[in-house]
Amino acid sequence: MNTFGSHFAFTSFGESHGRAIGGVIEGVPAKTEIYLDLITEMLGRRSGVGMKGVSPRAMSEMDEVEWLSGVVCQDGKLVALGTPIAFLIRNTDVRSQDYDILKTTFRPGHADYVYEKKYGIRDYRGGGRASARETAARVVAGGIAKQLLQKQGIEISARLVAVGEETDKNKFDDLLRAVQQSGDSIGGVVECEVKGMPLGVGEPIADKLSSHLAFAMLSINGCHGFEYGYGFDNLGLRGSDLYIDSEGRSRSPLDEEVMTGGIVGGMSDGTPLRFRCLFKPAATLTRIYKGRHDACIAVRAVSVVETMTALTIKDMITEY
Amino acid sequence: MNTFGSHFAFTSFGESHGRAIGGVIEGVPAKTEIYLDLITEMLGRRSGVGMKGVSPRAMSEMDEVEWLSGVVCQDGKLVALGTPIAFLIRNTDVRSQDYDILKTTFRPGHADYVYEKKYGIRDYRGGGRASARETAARVVAGGIAKQLLQKQGIEISARLVAVGEETDKNKFDDLLRAVQQSGDSIGGVVECEVKGMPLGVGEPIADKLSSHLAFAMLSINGCHGFEYGYGFDNLGLRGSDLYIDSEGRSRSPLDEEVMTGGIVGGMSDGTPLRFRCLFKPAATLTRIYKGRHDACIAVRAVSVVETMTALTIKDMITEY
Amino acid sequence: MNTFGSHFAFTSFGESHGRAIGGVIEGVPAKTEIYLDLITEMLGRRSGVGMKGVSPRAMSEMDEVEWLSGVVCQDGKLVALGTPIAFLIRNTDVRSQDYDILKTTFRPGHADYVYEKKYGIRDYRGGGRASARETAARVVAGGIAKQLLQKQGIEISARLVAVGEETDKNKFDDLLRAVQQSGDSIGGVVECEVKGMPLGVGEPIADKLSSHLAFAMLSINGCHGFEYGYGFDNLGLRGSDLYIDSEGRSRSPLDEEVMTGGIVGGMSDGTPLRFRCLFKPAATLTRIYKGRHDACIAVRAVSVVETMTALTIKDMITEY
Amino acid sequence: MNTFGSHFAFTSFGESHGRAIGGVIEGVPAKTEIYLDLITEMLGRRSGVGMKGVSPRAMSEMDEVEWLSGVVCQDGKLVALGTPIAFLIRNTDVRSQDYDILKTTFRPGHADYVYEKKYGIRDYRGGGRASARETAARVVAGGIAKQLLQKQGIEISARLVAVGEETDKNKFDDLLRAVQQSGDSIGGVVECEVKGMPLGVGEPIADKLSSHLAFAMLSINGCHGFEYGYGFDNLGLRGSDLYIDSEGRSRSPLDEEVMTGGIVGGMSDGTPLRFRCLFKPAATLTRIYKGRHDACIAVRAVSVVETMTALTIKDMITEY
Repeated sequence: MNTFGSHFAFTSFGESHGRAIGGVIEGVPAKTEIYLDLITEMLGRRSGVGMKGVSPRAMSEMDEVEWLSGVVCQDGKLVALGTPIAFLIRNTDVRSQDYDILKTTFRPGHADYVYEKKYGIRDYRGGGRASARETAARVVAGGIAKQLLQKQGIEISARLVAVGEETDKNKFDDLLRAVQQSGDSIGGVVECEVKGMPLGVGEPIADKLSSHLAFAMLSINGCHGFEYGYGFDNLGLRGSDLYIDSEGRSRSPLDEEVMTGGIVGGMSDGTPLRFRCLFKPAATLTRIYKGRHDACIAVRAVSVVETMTALTIKDMITEY
Repeated sequence: MNTFGSHFAFTSFGESHGRAIGGVIEGVPAKTEIYLDLITEMLGRRSGVGMKGVSPRAMSEMDEVEWLSGVVCQDGKLVALGTPIAFLIRNTDVRSQDYDILKTTFRPGHADYVYEKKYGIRDYRGGGRASARETAARVVAGGIAKQLLQKQGIEISARLVAVGEETDKNKFDDLLRAVQQSGDSIGGVVECEVKGMPLGVGEPIADKLSSHLAFAMLSINGCHGFEYGYGFDNLGLRGSDLYIDSEGRSRSPLDEEVMTGGIVGGMSDGTPLRFRCLFKPAATLTRIYKGRHDACIAVRAVSVVETMTALTIKDMITEY
Repeated sequence: MNTFGSHFAFTSFGESHGRAIGGVIEGVPAKTEIYLDLITEMLGRRSGVGMKGVSPRAMSEMDEVEWLSGVVCQDGKLVALGTPIAFLIRNTDVRSQDYDILKTTFRPGHADYVYEKKYGIRDYRGGGRASARETAARVVAGGIAKQLLQKQGIEISARLVAVGEETDKNKFDDLLRAVQQSGDSIGGVVECEVKGMPLGVGEPIADKLSSHLAFAMLSINGCHGFEYGYGFDNLGLRGSDLYIDSEGRSRSPLDEEVMTGGIVGGMSDGTPLRFRCLFKPAATLTRIYKGRHDACIAVRAVSVVETMTALTIKDMITEY
Repeated sequence: MNTFGSHFAFTSFGESHGRAIGGVIEGVPAKTEIYLDLITEMLGRRSGVGMKGVSPRAMSEMDEVEWLSGVVCQDGKLVALGTPIAFLIRNTDVRSQDYDILKTTFRPGHADYVYEKKYGIRDYRGGGRASARETAARVVAGGIAKQLLQKQGIEISARLVAVGEETDKNKFDDLLRAVQQSGDSIGGVVECEVKGMPLGVGEPIADKLSSHLAFAMLSINGCHGFEYGYGFDNLGLRGSDLYIDSEGRSRSPLDEEVMTGGIVGGMSDGTPLRFRCLFKPAATLTRIYKGRHDACIAVRAVSVVETMTALTIKDMITEY
């Protein structure tokens, strides 16, 4: 319910306005050195400090990780014991008064209505578990997965490729600033690329790599869509555009990697993975609700997409 | 690896050109009457007999289900014992000679290259496990899940909503015929609607309903994308278009069901589910390879989308 | 529910008096040659033909395996494709009239009472799923696991070590014959030894090797107890008997392998595994019920103990 | 790997001599009031303060639970939010010098040898994860499971029934004192009874109630055996002793509950569960190693047996 993966596994806990968020990471091999720099860099990108389209609240979020178990300090390095790594990030700067209006109202498109009906109890401040704050804990685990994959020659990098219908990166900042100033919100698309994938990750029927990636991406707050290689925008292309070269001959299996996205028959084919995640406009509009809200959640989602990709692939490669 | 679900679970077996395909279904309550009519109707739609865009091979596929265990005949009715239901569908009409060219070549965009590299052994005839034939076994299980959900007031129906960029249903047949005649292939989109969903199906973090649906849909042969409610086509809309009414006031949480697709925060919100699946053009072009191939795999995928939706929701409701 | 293992996985189906029993085996590597001789030998021991303490019905049980998928014949050898291996064994010689008395009565100590109450439907003939017949399907899968382990240098062998309180093997046959002739039943103990175990199989907390073995053994019909190394009979020994040598010095960790049973802290320690399974007297007494019943189910359980051991270890080593 | 259960799930973390131990509990319904008294009482029994056969170190272990997430204080009550409950117990009174001898030696029968070989790194102080200290975290989770079961009318109680071969409870204290004074250790048996079990918990083949209980019990440190109802001591009894009354007639299915232990065919039969767990003599003898060690680990295991029983049954009933 709160766990991703079965071999490299991450269990998440914590409410956005409770005492702490955190998690338990299983499957980190004994004697792995954990590089805090990478985790800090990813947490920084997730916090969105100084980014356009991101709530000014981001500025004061200082995500300090407290390690509870599974690691020891040796010669100034953080080293894994092979036992479960538990950590927490305490919550600070909780301006609950900003959320007072929510005590009696429900935001359309936001989970608080369903929480109230399903559980009969809700933490109206900041969304409780539904808050994007929970993803900070995932990023810590994802940062470790990313390091382990790097050692295996696998590099994951995601980037924002659309803000609304705008796909020209040079125009993102202006558009995001304009949306934010008008107290509105806008959707976006994050693309992720994975280089160095070995061939054959994924199983042919029920455990396809594409299925697991889609599962992981759709678990990110506000993610409404997933596509790999050939996407919704490519419906104008026919088979002959994809599989036949200019001479009318069948291409080699690896020619058209952009279209396969690096996955065929549910398994990686040895070429880079390429997939895209769609994020809806944030449901909490500054124009309507007090508080400091993101105009475009896709901006901060970039490091979370990397995180969920790393957790998914590390788990599947551990099985594999 | 070949199992979908954990409470209402389906394990698939069989190669497209081997002796039989089939499966084992767990979680069907004792004394459930199984309506063969619905299963036959879904198998018929999956076989695509007489449909445009579908291989003529479809005409000779007669999917006859042999029940091995878990059911008894009582007064002419097929009744479940509460034990695992195993069944098989024998393979017939296997024209292996059509596939002889594949013995030495690999199709771009098709799984046979990866199979060969990963397993070192492949059934070049009809794709082995990668063949869409395997989905016939899923449809039998999905048909039972669909019946059980109907009793609970949940209705699942999918339909083809795009053939390439064409979205006018009246023009589908002509377009499909043209593509087929030119020996080419084309992508498509299947939309699925689920009415009668109770509120609260799905878990807030790792077991979101949207994650499980995406996982299931991406497991269908040729499926390259999934989106629910707000989709890739909606990037032009802003938060103010979605969450504020014409008077500038916040809408009620349930007003904008089209945009939520019936899922918020990973849980069903009590309104109908609505999601779309993207299918790529088939990789095996009649123009290039001998044999009888589908011009648009989305056509036959409609009943498989219903099947995977039924399996997913039945499994999650059994847990729930 | 009907599946053992997650990497090397076996799903069982079939009722004792239905059309067939069988199963699906996942995780057999492509190109594995399957030796039918070993499977036949294990099925033979399971059927108990000619053994004392076993129902004469055993004589007519001819377990013929029909392979449905996942294998091909190459040069007279049965070779795995890497896809799920499905098989069935058809039921024959079903003398239902022997069970007519059971239509209206419940046997004490037998599952039929609970089945009726839980499912509201029961196959009174031969116990349905509760019948030991289901274990024949397990033996097929276990036979394959055993072969794969042998290639890795791991040898599994079980034997009957007690019939009631009798532990002198020379006296077993006479005792079993006497119990059978009196229409009574008697308990027994099966000991299993595993040689060639690598060190470190099992996880320290929730996935202990001892836990998984106990889980598997208790799933065998009539198994009421499990112990490894130091057992219930050893309560007279103190720590100083076990861990200190005759000079009063601490032994080496590997000295006292009989007491550890090859497992410490939940993990294999590199010495042979040794554990024992307790079987209760059969609940169906020939003295009371018509039909042909086992006087001592432990006799036929020997190959099932080997089977469940092989399935468990193969699954844990595949993960490991 | 460190998680018990799938619906009511507990994930454990922490080393015995690290910063803290703790865990994450999933599946506690929203609005459940958590009674700290019961948890404190169970932790007290687990700590063994003042009990014979228990290390004097117990006296200084003050297990204070810090709740990190998933609960709120309302009107002085601790109430669950329905989200994962994370907690920690900080480690104090860590007399590492007592363990200095272990830096270079391995104890026979103790996991430290295997840890060193498997992981290449070990916390020689107190056994790291292998330490019984980890069970304190389980007890917190088990205490909550026990409360939830009590509300459903299910009562779990375990007790020490043998110290070595001694089964007369009146003589336990003297025997334990004598063993402790001689710096030796001794095995023991804990019996557990569960009243109020509904009929039908457990599945007939792979998810038997007996399998799950055995799995859970064997996960307790030092547990070497499990038996339910008819046990290793009952090998002298025949079927006619168990299933036929004094008149030679078949008993009713529920007559001989002591023999079934409340489980038939893998499912609860509606009578009380009764099973026994065997604990070996502790491997760390005070006579040999410095430090304060338990003479009989079965003494403190009583509340852990209750804990693992509660976790197992709560998980299976949540599924059921």
